Amino acid sequence: MNALTQLGMVSDFPSENQTTDIVSAAVEDDRKDYFVERDGMRYAGTHLLVDLWGASRLDDPEHIDAALREAALAAGATILHSHFHHFSPNGGVSGVVILAESHISIHTWPERSFAAVDIFMCGACDPYLAIPVLQEAFSPTDVRLDEQRRGRIA
Amino acid sequence: MNALTQLGMVSDFPSENQTTDIVSAAVEDDRKDYFVERDGMRYAGTHLLVDLWGASRLDDPEHIDAALREAALAAGATILHSHFHHFSPNGGVSGVVILAESHISIHTWPERSFAAVDIFMCGACDPYLAIPVLQEAFSPTDVRLDEQRRGRIA
Repeated sequence: MNALTQLGMVSDFPSENQTTDIVSAAVEDDRKDYFVERDGMRYAGTHLLVDLWGASRLDDPEHIDAALREAALAAGATILHSHFHHFSPNGGVSGVVILAESHISIHTWPERSFAAVDIFMCGACDPYLAIPVLQEAFSPTDVRLDEQRRGRIA
Repeated sequence: MNALTQLGMVSDFPSENQTTDIVSAAVEDDRKDYFVERDGMRYAGTHLLVDLWGASRLDDPEHIDAALREAALAAGATILHSHFHHFSPNGGVSGVVILAESHISIHTWPERSFAAVDIFMCGACDPYLAIPVLQEAFSPTDVRLDEQRRGRIA
């Protein structure tokens, strides 16, 4: 499996095993991140910067992967790829789920019960629908959220 | 090669071929995203939200991959993994370079000469050093930049 292959490669961390994937879609009209119009503004997409404090299970990459995938689907997004890196010795996780409508990323600091999450979605998705999934998955005592509208043209 | 394998998988876009990689580092002390102190503030990392307008070469995934890697290295970051998706029919690219110190992501709209870039770096990196690399690679006529300090604790 890909994951096992990756494990084998990354035992030589860091520089000799940088993986690069460049993928072309063979399907027409697969772009789902057209510009949207909302509240009288026109822009590419909504980017939520979400800081989770007092959070749990931040050192479990399988759990984090499942949570971010569920969050993406809850927001109406299409998942293309995910990659998570599990660090030693603190157990922190860094990773991203790439979507047809942009991405969800996470970086965790289990020793501080803190995670920085980014939910960037375009097209018909609603990134706010991802928030309850994150709350369920990580049980944060405090959530700090900031919204940025990227690529504003009007 | 991994890239060829991925190409083969994604020709069945979108849902049946979601790739998931979960990687654990076998090396101790590979964490490079410790909290920093600057300007009297203590926080996890600096996150630059960079919107490029009037930009070129936004439909060339190999060029974008090379540019983001060069940008990461210029900022002093350690590259772990990159993945780029090339969309049809507009040729837009979505992707990310995952770093030991967080990530750089990009989403391009070649038909609008617009790209949304995120440069999230922790530890000893300086994400501002990535900006000239992006300017060189994509020749934007206008760059909009916003800085967010993530995970502020003091």
